[in-house]
Formats: sequence, structure tokens, C-alpha cells
Amino acid sequence: MFNKILIIGCGLIGSSIVRAVLDKRLSNKIYIFEKSKKYISTIKKINKKLIIIKKLNKNINDMDLVILSTPMSSYDKIIPYLNKFLSTNSIITDIGSTRENVLNLKKKKLKKSLTWILSHPISGSEVSGPIHGKKNLFRNKWCIVVSDKNKVKLRKVIGFWKKMGSNIKLMNPREHDKIFAITSHLPHLIAYNLIKTAQDFQKKDKKNLIQFSAGGLRDFSRTAASNEIMWRDIFFNNKKNIIQAINLFSKNLNAFKKNIQNLDDKKLRKKLINSKKVRRQIVNLKHDIDKPDFGRD
Amino acid sequence: MFNKILIIGCGLIGSSIVRAVLDKRLSNKIYIFEKSKKYISTIKKINKKLIIIKKLNKNINDMDLVILSTPMSSYDKIIPYLNKFLSTNSIITDIGSTRENVLNLKKKKLKKSLTWILSHPISGSEVSGPIHGKKNLFRNKWCIVVSDKNKVKLRKVIGFWKKMGSNIKLMNPREHDKIFAITSHLPHLIAYNLIKTAQDFQKKDKKNLIQFSAGGLRDFSRTAASNEIMWRDIFFNNKKNIIQAINLFSKNLNAFKKNIQNLDDKKLRKKLINSKKVRRQIVNLKHDIDKPDFGRD
Repeated sequence: MFNKILIIGCGLIGSSIVRAVLDKRLSNKIYIFEKSKKYISTIKKINKKLIIIKKLNKNINDMDLVILSTPMSSYDKIIPYLNKFLSTNSIITDIGSTRENVLNLKKKKLKKSLTWILSHPISGSEVSGPIHGKKNLFRNKWCIVVSDKNKVKLRKVIGFWKKMGSNIKLMNPREHDKIFAITSHLPHLIAYNLIKTAQDFQKKDKKNLIQFSAGGLRDFSRTAASNEIMWRDIFFNNKKNIIQAINLFSKNLNAFKKNIQNLDDKKLRKKLINSKKVRRQIVNLKHDIDKPDFGRD
Repeated sequence: MFNKILIIGCGLIGSSIVRAVLDKRLSNKIYIFEKSKKYISTIKKINKKLIIIKKLNKNINDMDLVILSTPMSSYDKIIPYLNKFLSTNSIITDIGSTRENVLNLKKKKLKKSLTWILSHPISGSEVSGPIHGKKNLFRNKWCIVVSDKNKVKLRKVIGFWKKMGSNIKLMNPREHDKIFAITSHLPHLIAYNLIKTAQDFQKKDKKNLIQFSAGGLRDFSRTAASNEIMWRDIFFNNKKNIIQAINLFSKNLNAFKKNIQNLDDKKLRKKLINSKKVRRQIVNLKHDIDKPDFGRD
């Protein structure tokens, strides 16, 4: 499918792309640019044919596909190298979790003759680093792609993610950032905040609460163990939508509190019953297994 | 261990007790009082020797152990029958998720000559009903027991839960309700509130957001699918502690919002890093598996 692919940043997502590209034989050569020595030593063990490069220089000129899979806060530093060294035949894509900021960055900083197709594979996890990467990370997951006037290159990127096993959804950046503020960013923020609150109570009461963590706290703790650089970038870059989401969440939380204060059986029960619909929908979509407690046993 | 055990209310927890008692041969006879016809037809299939009773009357007189495993809001209606028919040799226990209210109810309504040892096995799930019960539900889980002046009967109840495989922790009701407000009640409330917020956004934007549910929302949806009667009872009965917990959560959420608004890298990152400690603790306690995404694959 490609002659040369360059992966810039080879953590959980980058190394999963590497593994899938090898598995599906999507490229003759795979180049990797990664700053962490620890990561590189893990990556070298994946396959001997991988080509680790130490600098982004004229050697990257003839890459067919360049995939940015660093935290989004690093894109800014990478773009000048792409501008300077990359051929206009190349396709750039990335895997960032917010899109309006990247579209703006691209408009502002990327050389007009280069093409960057924005993509966002929905495949994060609470673990990071190439040690956790796996070739099937993208299989049956959504990959959100932002349309582009260069239809040939757009089709190539779509084709690439399809080969990775993903289901493609075209979305404009504004819509993307609104939707994922709710389905991903707010849940992570709330999980972080809940764990922080439990820690505060533990400190205040000088008691080891965590040892009694029941199902609720335990599951939140997984989400709240996600990579801090990635999530800081997301929270900062999708600020407007996330703050809107926090505001609605807070309004609902106050109403919930009032229902409890007033022992308002009818209103409270309606809420508790309604939320089951979402669970049913998620299970029906096969986005989760239907086993109690995620089948832990 | 016992001659006759009576289970009042035979849903997820009650039927799991039944299964474990059968498995460990902890009682010669098992009596079950359950109002739902649907539940009864499931229960009958567990074992032919189970004795389904249709009324709480003089036949319950010589029960050795009576376990209330109905929602807590039904205790009030059951107590008069215990007062009227139960021998003072019997031991009463229950499995409710809040303790101060039950202690108060017991003091106010239970005949002084009867003994009720409060216990709370930490073993809930988002599913309910006897169809989901299992004999190992209590194995390696905490069972919180409230101390009692009747040490003989206290030891018998502790011995019973130990046989069920539980780890015992003695706690006073006040402490219990404070701790579980944080480790269980607040997480459930927050999960319900998050799902409600996602539903509100979906309605407002007339878009099907849920189909893009990433890991965060999906896991919350499990918690928010829990039984509404049980959770209404918990929220109402632990009102004081839960409202305190909501208040601290809201205060923290406002601080989080400010960190995002001000792009305060240092404060935000400190939070995101700190919460990993809780995850590590929970995994070290073996309260969860250490596989990414709960080992879903």
C-alpha cells in the first residue's frame, strides 16, 4: 500500500500502528522517530526491520505517509521539520483527540503545498507506552476522519484506517470536539475529580478509605489513571466545549442534590431508571460486553 | 452450622446467599420469602429442597438465622412480623448498604428481646434478580459487620460470613456510612449524573452521541445501570454524608474548571498524576485486575 511510512512518536498508539502495519504488510519500510530511549529499546524488539531515525532531516523527504502520534502539544515543534524536508507528494496524518485546534494549527503553520488529513482513532486506554501497544488496537473501533479538499489523499488515509480494522466516520472538527467533549473528555475529567475527592476525604479523615473501594470507585480509578500529558492537552485544547459540559454536569448535580435533600422519590427514581437506556444502547452497539461487572470473576 | 435459615427477599444477594449456603451445607433447611412470582420461578430451579413460604407467620418461629435481603425501604414493613412471630433464640441480620438508618430503625421498632446483627457484604453489581446470583459472590469481598452486645450471636454472624468467603471488618454505623459515601455512594451518584448529562446533550444537539461512547462513558454506563430502588434507598438514607461528598466534589470540580480556564499546566498536571496513586493502590490490594481496559479484548 505504501513504500515508506514514518511514525513520529511511538507510544501506545504509534507502536500499535507499527504492529498493525507489519501484520498487514501495509508498507515496505517503516521509519520511527521517537525521543524516549526507553521506548526505543522496546520498539527495537518488535521487529528487526524497523528503521529508527534520530533526526527529522532530508531523509524524511520521500515518506509516503507520516503519522504524528505524539501528544498534541508537540505538533507545534514538529511542523517546521515537515515544512522544511517533506515532499509535497507525502501525506501527513495524526491521531490527536481534539480537532479544531489541530485544524487551526495546520492552517497557521503548515506549508500550503503539504497535505495533512486529520484522523482520530477512538482507541485510547489508561496505559501508555509501546510495551502496551497491540496490532488489534484499532479493530472494530471508530476512526474519525476530517474531510479534505485533496480527495485522493483523503481516500488513501481512509483506506489506511480501514486496513487497520477501523470503522470510518467523517466529521467536521467542530462537531467532533462537541461530541467527544461529552462521550470522552467529560467522563475522564469527572473520573479524575472523583478520585481527587476520595483522596481529599482520606486525608481529612486520616482513614484508609481506598481499601474499601467498591465497584464504583474502582472503575473510576482506571479511567483516572490515563496519561497526564495527553489529557492535559485535551482539556486545554477543547476548553470551550469541556467547560460547557462541566456547567451542565454541575447544574444536573445540583438538581440531584436537591432531589436527595427533599427525598423526592419520583424525580430521583426517574433519573435512575432513565440511565439504564444508555447502558442498553452501548451493549446493543457491542461497545461493551453484557457481563455483570465486565465479566470480572 | 444452622438448622433453619430464612431468606427474606431473594434477589441478587439473597439468591447468592442461598446458593452459597447450599454449596457449603451451612443449613439443614432453607426457607425463602419472596414476593415476586418471576423471582420465585427462578429460585425454584436452583434446588428442589428450598422451601418457599408465602407468609411470615408462626411458621418462622424457630428460624436460627433470618437474613433480610430486600431493599432497605421494606425493612419497616417486615419488622412487625419478626416482632410477632420470631423466637428470641433467632438471629436476625441484613445486607443493607447504609447502617445508621438501620440501627435507628432497629432501636425504634424491633422488640428488645430480639437480636439483629447488622452486616453489609460489599458485593453489589449493576445486575439484579436471582438469575444473576452466584455462590461465589461474597468470596474475597469485605463484609462489614456492626458490633453488638450479644457476643455469642455476633460471633455466629461473623462465622457465617467467613464461611461465605468474606473478609470481615467491624465498623460502627457512623464510620461505615462516612466511608461508603465516598467509596461507593458518590461514585454511583456521579455515574448516574454523567449519563443524565450525556442524555441531555444528546437531546439538545439531536445527535446520536452515545454511539461514539469511548471507554469513559461506557464504564460509567455500567455503574449507572444499577438497581434504582436499592440506590434510591441508599441516597435517601445516607443523605447527610452524600451531600457533604457532593459539596466537596463540586468544590473540586470548580477548581478543575478554573485550571482549564486559566490553562494552569502545573496545577492540572499535579491532579492528573496524583490520581494514578489510587489506581496503583486498588490494583495492589487485588481489588482489580491490572489489565488495560479491564482485560477487554
